[in-house]
Amino acid sequence: MMNDIFAKAFDNVRESSPLVHNITNYVTVNDCANILLACGASPIMVDDEGEVVEITTICAGLNINIGTLNSRTVSAMKLAGKRAGALGHPIVLDPVGAGASKLRTETAVSLMREVRPDVIRGNISEIKTLISSSGNVKGVDAGDADRVTEKNLDSVIKTVKAFSKESGAVIAVTGEIDIVADESRAFVIRNGCREMSAVTGTGCMLSAMTAAFITANPKNILEAAAAAVMAMGLAGETAKARMSGSDGSGSFRVYLMDAVYNMTGDVLVKGAKYEVR
Amino acid sequence: MMNDIFAKAFDNVRESSPLVHNITNYVTVNDCANILLACGASPIMVDDEGEVVEITTICAGLNINIGTLNSRTVSAMKLAGKRAGALGHPIVLDPVGAGASKLRTETAVSLMREVRPDVIRGNISEIKTLISSSGNVKGVDAGDADRVTEKNLDSVIKTVKAFSKESGAVIAVTGEIDIVADESRAFVIRNGCREMSAVTGTGCMLSAMTAAFITANPKNILEAAAAAVMAMGLAGETAKARMSGSDGSGSFRVYLMDAVYNMTGDVLVKGAKYEVR
Amino acid sequence: MMNDIFAKAFDNVRESSPLVHNITNYVTVNDCANILLACGASPIMVDDEGEVVEITTICAGLNINIGTLNSRTVSAMKLAGKRAGALGHPIVLDPVGAGASKLRTETAVSLMREVRPDVIRGNISEIKTLISSSGNVKGVDAGDADRVTEKNLDSVIKTVKAFSKESGAVIAVTGEIDIVADESRAFVIRNGCREMSAVTGTGCMLSAMTAAFITANPKNILEAAAAAVMAMGLAGETAKARMSGSDGSGSFRVYLMDAVYNMTGDVLVKGAKYEVR
Repeated sequence: MMNDIFAKAFDNVRESSPLVHNITNYVTVNDCANILLACGASPIMVDDEGEVVEITTICAGLNINIGTLNSRTVSAMKLAGKRAGALGHPIVLDPVGAGASKLRTETAVSLMREVRPDVIRGNISEIKTLISSSGNVKGVDAGDADRVTEKNLDSVIKTVKAFSKESGAVIAVTGEIDIVADESRAFVIRNGCREMSAVTGTGCMLSAMTAAFITANPKNILEAAAAAVMAMGLAGETAKARMSGSDGSGSFRVYLMDAVYNMTGDVLVKGAKYEVR
Repeated sequence: MMNDIFAKAFDNVRESSPLVHNITNYVTVNDCANILLACGASPIMVDDEGEVVEITTICAGLNINIGTLNSRTVSAMKLAGKRAGALGHPIVLDPVGAGASKLRTETAVSLMREVRPDVIRGNISEIKTLISSSGNVKGVDAGDADRVTEKNLDSVIKTVKAFSKESGAVIAVTGEIDIVADESRAFVIRNGCREMSAVTGTGCMLSAMTAAFITANPKNILEAAAAAVMAMGLAGETAKARMSGSDGSGSFRVYLMDAVYNMTGDVLVKGAKYEVR
Repeated sequence: MMNDIFAKAFDNVRESSPLVHNITNYVTVNDCANILLACGASPIMVDDEGEVVEITTICAGLNINIGTLNSRTVSAMKLAGKRAGALGHPIVLDPVGAGASKLRTETAVSLMREVRPDVIRGNISEIKTLISSSGNVKGVDAGDADRVTEKNLDSVIKTVKAFSKESGAVIAVTGEIDIVADESRAFVIRNGCREMSAVTGTGCMLSAMTAAFITANPKNILEAAAAAVMAMGLAGETAKARMSGSDGSGSFRVYLMDAVYNMTGDVLVKGAKYEVR
């Protein structure tokens, strides 16, 4: 059963407590560390060229996020990424802001090519940028670029599957509707809530969690990535349901962390809303 | 009516959701991003020389904060600042810690001169440092330096107006009593509470919000900056009123974010405490 | 009475509000600043070589944390450390991750030697790494390395005292059981709770608080460091006791800050659980 795989994917994180190396941005790094702890993983945040290879070696998975990239950390990302690849460690790439600057797009593309991530997680704009900058996949239609809707869903899924085939990575496109796909199967996930975009870093946190999930479930990368996306969305719903009175984005953020902390594989599958396409 | 301008200034932020480029410190950057989201704006945090010009170009306003300055980011601040100026984007400068080191004072002064910010927001010590380091305005009297009180208020206002005339920027001096002034008019604002100084970054958050407010209201820089200062102070009061039992600075910080998230122009003017001098 | 010394150590922080210079990591820096404010101290976070000497000079104490070290900040740490030493300012070294990479171990050891910290605070693995990398003290037995237990407590205390004698620093080893020792006396502290390890940065926050405590109590470094360790552990217990319903690690983190904010010397000694060995 698919649900058993998702539940097991979550529980495996708590049971194996994978050590995840994060080279990430200074805006949301604290939240990334805390969400990794909340889901049962162990975070290490290290970005200096002089030690990333050693650190990646003692970890079991790697999360690369280009949110606040600079020349010093880009080379550290590549060093760590190649080492992680050589060791067979699962790798997530979060191409934050790809498309917003030449440096950002080029960095995301070169990381994708040189590091060969197992999962690329981004919003539709970032994924669209990677697709159109990196190869032969027909880009998402212009009109489809801003968001994934029920109307353009089939078309986006087709493009994402093609991009997964070309890149060799599971692609996780998150937004109102989430898609997690490899070249042959796509999970369409409808968890989450609007409040998640009122807190910075929910995307970064999800990428960090995804790294933990695929590290704890290296033989089920697609399902593990989908489970992480569902878990984050469900945590958002749980947090929203808890809001009352004067609560706003500050309380929502605290409740979101609490929801991940209190989640189990069983809770996850009971709240997961997905279909396979 | 003045109140209508302030209410409209706030509501314009939520309606236009201005994209604000922040080059800021790594201590409070997460809070700055979250407060921008809470008031309805969209934050981008990018500080690498290789992309700041492009990023500033796609944004509508710029917030420069020297909290944790280093040589790499100072040049990025200047590149972004000049580009923003050339594009007519509103700019805020937060001269954190000016006066505490030679590098800090010189950087603040050179940013003020080269970037020509629309608003400079700081505490009385920082503003006093800029005044005495940068020109002909007679400094705030030594005895007046530490804080703005009812007793020295007239004298400080006079100095701040003169500094506004010389610098060409609206000056926002925040503390127990806040002053937001151009060369001819000063808003004296008495919102806020003592607990705000028990949380790091309330000043940084206010500068970020000010950037959002003036970006959404480019024709009313003075009033928009004053509205941001009132909004932050009122949010502090709202947060304080919500505290009970075992609550302390941790809860206050969450409530402060919630208060901004739930604020509207209407709420703002009902709670605003100001006079014009 | 020992309790009077601990209570006074805490109250001295609130009364003198020491200005503490922190050169620390970007993961937990915001929490470090907020915990310093919560216990009554004043934080400054500055790490640029061009100004650390001036900043340290206007401060009263220094906290060095190598959590996200890089070449730029290591030299700033040494510059600041030597200046602080020359001025007689109390210094804390937090050798985060010593043992996890060559760079990290070497940096920790060289900081220990060149800066001569008054207190070194770390977990048992980090302290063990410093011991075995730096001199003649017989290392903690391999079997004792992972954690301090009632069974190996005597042996660990003996080793820690010897390391204190060799390094000239008070050593604070924190974990399930905490040990704060100089060469002749060890405080064994049993405050704290499991939830503290579910939030990133509780160790970093404790190091920052320790810097505040020893700065406010320069003649009682050992007792002040022990008081800081007790205060953090007790705050954890207070936070845990407040948890209910859907609360998790997000709420715990807020409650922890609240607990420090509301603590007094009197509260501290009523909740402190320690013995002298």
